[in-house]
Amino acid sequence: MSGWLIAEDRFEEQDIAHLGNEYLSGNGFMGVRGTLDEYKKEQMVSINLAGVYDKHEDKWRESVNAPNPLYTFVMHQNEVYSVPDKEPVIHSQSLDFRNAIHKRVTTFRAKPGNITIESERFVSMDNRHVIGLAFSVRTDFDGEITLYTGIDSDVWDINGPHFINKQLYEKDGILLASCITGEKKINVVTAEGVLSKIPSDMEVVCRDDKILRKFSFDARANQTYIIEKVAFIDWSERGVSQTECVNKLQKALQLGYDELKARHIEAWDRIWDISEVRIDGDDEANMALNYSIYHLNCIAPRFSESMSIPARGLSGQVYKGAIFWDTEMFMFDYFLYTQPKIARTLIKYRIETLDGARKKAASYGFKGAFFAWESQEGGIDACSDFNVTDVFTGRPMRTYFKDKQVHVTSAIVYALKKYIKNTKDNQILYEGGYELLLESALFYKSILVRRDESELYEIHDVVGPDEYHERVNNNAYTNRMARFVFDTAVEIFVKLRNTDPAEFGRLNQRYDLVNLIPKLEKIKGSLYLQKPSGEEQIIEQFDGYFKLEEVDIETLRTRLLHEKEYWGGALGVATHTRIIKQADVVTMLCMFPDDYSAEIMKKNWDFYEPRTEHGSSLSACMYSLLACRTGNPDAAYPFFLTSAKADLKKGGKQWAGNIYIGGTHPASAGGAWMVAVFGFAGLKVKNNGLAVEGSLPENIKGIEFKVIFRNQLYLVRVGHDKSEIKKI
Amino acid sequence: MSGWLIAEDRFEEQDIAHLGNEYLSGNGFMGVRGTLDEYKKEQMVSINLAGVYDKHEDKWRESVNAPNPLYTFVMHQNEVYSVPDKEPVIHSQSLDFRNAIHKRVTTFRAKPGNITIESERFVSMDNRHVIGLAFSVRTDFDGEITLYTGIDSDVWDINGPHFINKQLYEKDGILLASCITGEKKINVVTAEGVLSKIPSDMEVVCRDDKILRKFSFDARANQTYIIEKVAFIDWSERGVSQTECVNKLQKALQLGYDELKARHIEAWDRIWDISEVRIDGDDEANMALNYSIYHLNCIAPRFSESMSIPARGLSGQVYKGAIFWDTEMFMFDYFLYTQPKIARTLIKYRIETLDGARKKAASYGFKGAFFAWESQEGGIDACSDFNVTDVFTGRPMRTYFKDKQVHVTSAIVYALKKYIKNTKDNQILYEGGYELLLESALFYKSILVRRDESELYEIHDVVGPDEYHERVNNNAYTNRMARFVFDTAVEIFVKLRNTDPAEFGRLNQRYDLVNLIPKLEKIKGSLYLQKPSGEEQIIEQFDGYFKLEEVDIETLRTRLLHEKEYWGGALGVATHTRIIKQADVVTMLCMFPDDYSAEIMKKNWDFYEPRTEHGSSLSACMYSLLACRTGNPDAAYPFFLTSAKADLKKGGKQWAGNIYIGGTHPASAGGAWMVAVFGFAGLKVKNNGLAVEGSLPENIKGIEFKVIFRNQLYLVRVGHDKSEIKKI
Repeated sequence: MSGWLIAEDRFEEQDIAHLGNEYLSGNGFMGVRGTLDEYKKEQMVSINLAGVYDKHEDKWRESVNAPNPLYTFVMHQNEVYSVPDKEPVIHSQSLDFRNAIHKRVTTFRAKPGNITIESERFVSMDNRHVIGLAFSVRTDFDGEITLYTGIDSDVWDINGPHFINKQLYEKDGILLASCITGEKKINVVTAEGVLSKIPSDMEVVCRDDKILRKFSFDARANQTYIIEKVAFIDWSERGVSQTECVNKLQKALQLGYDELKARHIEAWDRIWDISEVRIDGDDEANMALNYSIYHLNCIAPRFSESMSIPARGLSGQVYKGAIFWDTEMFMFDYFLYTQPKIARTLIKYRIETLDGARKKAASYGFKGAFFAWESQEGGIDACSDFNVTDVFTGRPMRTYFKDKQVHVTSAIVYALKKYIKNTKDNQILYEGGYELLLESALFYKSILVRRDESELYEIHDVVGPDEYHERVNNNAYTNRMARFVFDTAVEIFVKLRNTDPAEFGRLNQRYDLVNLIPKLEKIKGSLYLQKPSGEEQIIEQFDGYFKLEEVDIETLRTRLLHEKEYWGGALGVATHTRIIKQADVVTMLCMFPDDYSAEIMKKNWDFYEPRTEHGSSLSACMYSLLACRTGNPDAAYPFFLTSAKADLKKGGKQWAGNIYIGGTHPASAGGAWMVAVFGFAGLKVKNNGLAVEGSLPENIKGIEFKVIFRNQLYLVRVGHDKSEIKKI
Repeated sequence: MSGWLIAEDRFEEQDIAHLGNEYLSGNGFMGVRGTLDEYKKEQMVSINLAGVYDKHEDKWRESVNAPNPLYTFVMHQNEVYSVPDKEPVIHSQSLDFRNAIHKRVTTFRAKPGNITIESERFVSMDNRHVIGLAFSVRTDFDGEITLYTGIDSDVWDINGPHFINKQLYEKDGILLASCITGEKKINVVTAEGVLSKIPSDMEVVCRDDKILRKFSFDARANQTYIIEKVAFIDWSERGVSQTECVNKLQKALQLGYDELKARHIEAWDRIWDISEVRIDGDDEANMALNYSIYHLNCIAPRFSESMSIPARGLSGQVYKGAIFWDTEMFMFDYFLYTQPKIARTLIKYRIETLDGARKKAASYGFKGAFFAWESQEGGIDACSDFNVTDVFTGRPMRTYFKDKQVHVTSAIVYALKKYIKNTKDNQILYEGGYELLLESALFYKSILVRRDESELYEIHDVVGPDEYHERVNNNAYTNRMARFVFDTAVEIFVKLRNTDPAEFGRLNQRYDLVNLIPKLEKIKGSLYLQKPSGEEQIIEQFDGYFKLEEVDIETLRTRLLHEKEYWGGALGVATHTRIIKQADVVTMLCMFPDDYSAEIMKKNWDFYEPRTEHGSSLSACMYSLLACRTGNPDAAYPFFLTSAKADLKKGGKQWAGNIYIGGTHPASAGGAWMVAVFGFAGLKVKNNGLAVEGSLPENIKGIEFKVIFRNQLYLVRVGHDKSEIKKI
């Protein structure tokens, strides 16, 4: 890997799943896994559609994969020349992430000589429905070649099948797969057209849920035979007009592959113009960070007014294609500072799910908005009460992600507050933002408890960011974030009373604001917050954390009886120890850097870091960020690289119990950007403007990037000796 | 079995553990398992000492077994004639539970003919230290017999060894084993003397932690050779004088075996005079109930002023020899109504543990007294946070018996209140009863929580009687019992203010009673209680119980993957279903029969009974009692028999995870008495006197028993047509 290119130079079957993630393409409407042309569902091919979900029988509700229009393979003398079934002689796969172009070249040994196939593809950033593919075959002998290409509707599903009805047919030279999902009868259509440069007749064949074009021709040695394909994908709950699909696809075909590709690259150029971060003196960091930014853009909902980003991006159905707090906590800032319209889209999505959040809160006897832990369209919480499988018994294991991770609501408020502060787009408040804020405050108010005669409010029975410790009381992070929600609600509605009495009156009618505000003010001051304690000034992660067994991670690892066993849950090896899954107190300190001195923050970093498994992609960047802020950028650096390279590294945590959890890690990608910008460069909002306070690791000479703040573009340059922010 | 005798007529090796319980002898100072003379620790011999505990290394703290002075076996031609190693030709074992005499007769086939051994033993109810044994051997051939008898100090331990120092020696014809426990250096002494009628020299041999007398003699055909043994057992934290032991044992030997036995039987006669319950028309019920009463008396702390009864009686170290709420809830009433001095002793034990209970409460951040779940001397809670072993991983499993079964405190207050009401012995209040009551009320006050703006007090995060559902909110039983504690505290201290201002003043100084009482009064009225709801008028066992999976017990059983797996805990098969371990709401209705109409009680019985596994010996009697009270004695009857025969039935629940939980079930025994007296006979306290309201099953013609109420002895006779209570 170097510059803007990542590449493999050999074929390894065990890497198929990982490379599907690492070489992902996407445009926010769909994600296309970095799989090879001839792959089928066994190799986890996925054209993952943003915002389309389906529930099959009583299985987990999950996102839907479209039929694959890229399916292509070649035959010679009745033998298929495809990986992984046939070992290639030469193989390479690459991704130019500057231009978002995926390529592969593979040479197989056939009896009379070598057969080389080559392909290039892009998921158009210019036209969300379009995928382009150029596929070629070349032999070093004269012989007959058969090339199949078309649509494979036998898609990969984790909890499928999702299509209860599939039609495959040809119409005016276009192949179509029109499918209907079982639950909501969503119509998903994949269409495919070809610009063939192969001197052959074409016949259409259907088999095994595939509709394929068959080209048989006498290949001449060392001549390249090319087909160019354009695919068009759309979906609608109301039904997709197939005629329209065909027309649009034909228009695209008329433009031609090269023109479609040029427009795609131009669209990416515009993204890179605002997005690129230049890290001087460290090519590895520079490349990994921009690679991370590539991924964020592949999955950003830029074609929608109201949509969000799943925790595994658009890399498949892992985590049910659902949106987690990851988006607001770890991805939001990148968009807020570079493409605030997308940040707005992310917030609007949550506003749209307010009704679902209200229903969820009510189902647990609470008020207000309890946002979904695994959020699908309309706020449906896809999370199961049994979200991990016990490896010892094969039974579903009761987990408390869904019902006890109450902090999810606060992350949304935190993002909304930042959005308003950075954009001054108060309009969003009138589009449901006020309600979101109020319902969030009402939610936290309703979960508070007081003991005995105490006037102190506590929050009991929650799961904090560290999921290995379930059902704890007074999780430091959760309580502090709840306090933030109360603070924000009071601030915004006190202001609204003065600035817009009419709107205030409207809300007052529904929420009795006049009485509510003083109550929230009282709660604010009485909410229990974990404080630094003892000589060491450590903030206890939750009540009783300090009483847990002290053990180091390596010792804990020796207690494992099964490689895939879950560390948390009721019986996990970490549960009754001080070992935590991910940054928890440290995340709190990152969110509220002004609460405590750098010294206290550092002490807590030093205490918690060795006790953190970093078993989540949300962990490293928080440790990195806090290390920068406490003047330890060199300690921050390895965590930054871990975050930025989360999807470049083979291996990694692929299982929670028996549940596959592989996929891309956009939260890590966003976290890496946060470290670079807020950590190394030390960008912050100060006195209604931007300021920097560099905290560069030794091996980084400088860092340069653009940001947008209140509709103004800035260029930021930070070096060890001097820094500048200028309007451009 | 019939009348006052239970008997086995064959030897079955797999019954050894069970028979040890079924044929138990005891006098409250010690329990002697119904094992055979030749048994060793492998056959679970146990001379279990009441109130003596020890902790070995980091294992569970448990009760201590004394060296066994009954160890005896015979040899012929270098072969041992003992079960289980040698298959007997004829074998019987019996227990006359009227006179508390244990017998066995066994015939073995030897080469020249048959060898028959016979023994009779009793654990003296007249002298707590004494055990008598008459052992004989007879052959139907002439031949040499060697008889060994002495002390086996290689005792059975579950979490031992507990003796760090053992001395075995002979002194003035007496054999002694003097042992020191590891933790508290308690001196346990077993001494043994013999009245030999065997024409043989005797020599003393020591081997394998045993000190034995060896008698070798030429036995003549059909002549019986008898030895009579008297054992003396004592213990002290300060050290036992061995000279004194020897002297006392020699005095007992001078009285002779027959006189010791006669005094023992007389002592039992006095017990039966007040204790016997006559059930007319149902021999099985009559026998099983009196058998249960036998067991209660074997383990009653009649030789102490302050002691209690472990959940497994004195049948060994199961459940660590610890005292549970079982005593107050299920055994207390029998003693209260027949031997109120023993009831007082039970209460005094809890008063003595008040300091331990205060420390336990404080350790969880609560006030007042949180009594031990598994209570040992001084209120030490022997319960571990990991009280079950996971059969799938062999790991200790986190359970919440110790820290969340907050209802234990209320059971003690409930018993204290009954004791005062029935005996008018207010003196006990001045001996710590007031403090116990106050500290209990303070404890419940400190665990209350209020939500949001609610003035309603709730109790969260508890385990109720049904242990299969951990960490629930507002368990109906727990909240109602807490309410009872508040009620009782207010009633008693309001009264005290008028009747004894000096004592009130003393307590006020420490507890600020003047301000506390109004607070308790306010809480009383604001404590949330689960109420009958819906058309069916079912009381929800805890918040959210109705949302759990509806499944029948048989279906649940099919989900088991391992015969010993624990049904509760975080991952148990019952945990997320409506299947409960034992009576919970039904126990509450038994405790507060005036809260609801018989119709509502019956509806709740009908709802919960099919959902109850009855996986605890505390369950059947509550269902039985409530069935009587709702006019369904025939439905009550089978549950009564289950309770009364808990220790007669082979099999039963022997495991919780990988932990052995066998032993006697005195709570069932006490529960059977409660059903007979409060259920079938319908005895109740009414207008400061006793009343009956019979509810006899069809096959019981009448029931007759004596009770003591306020120092007055009563004879109660209840039939289907007429009933009477008369002073005698």
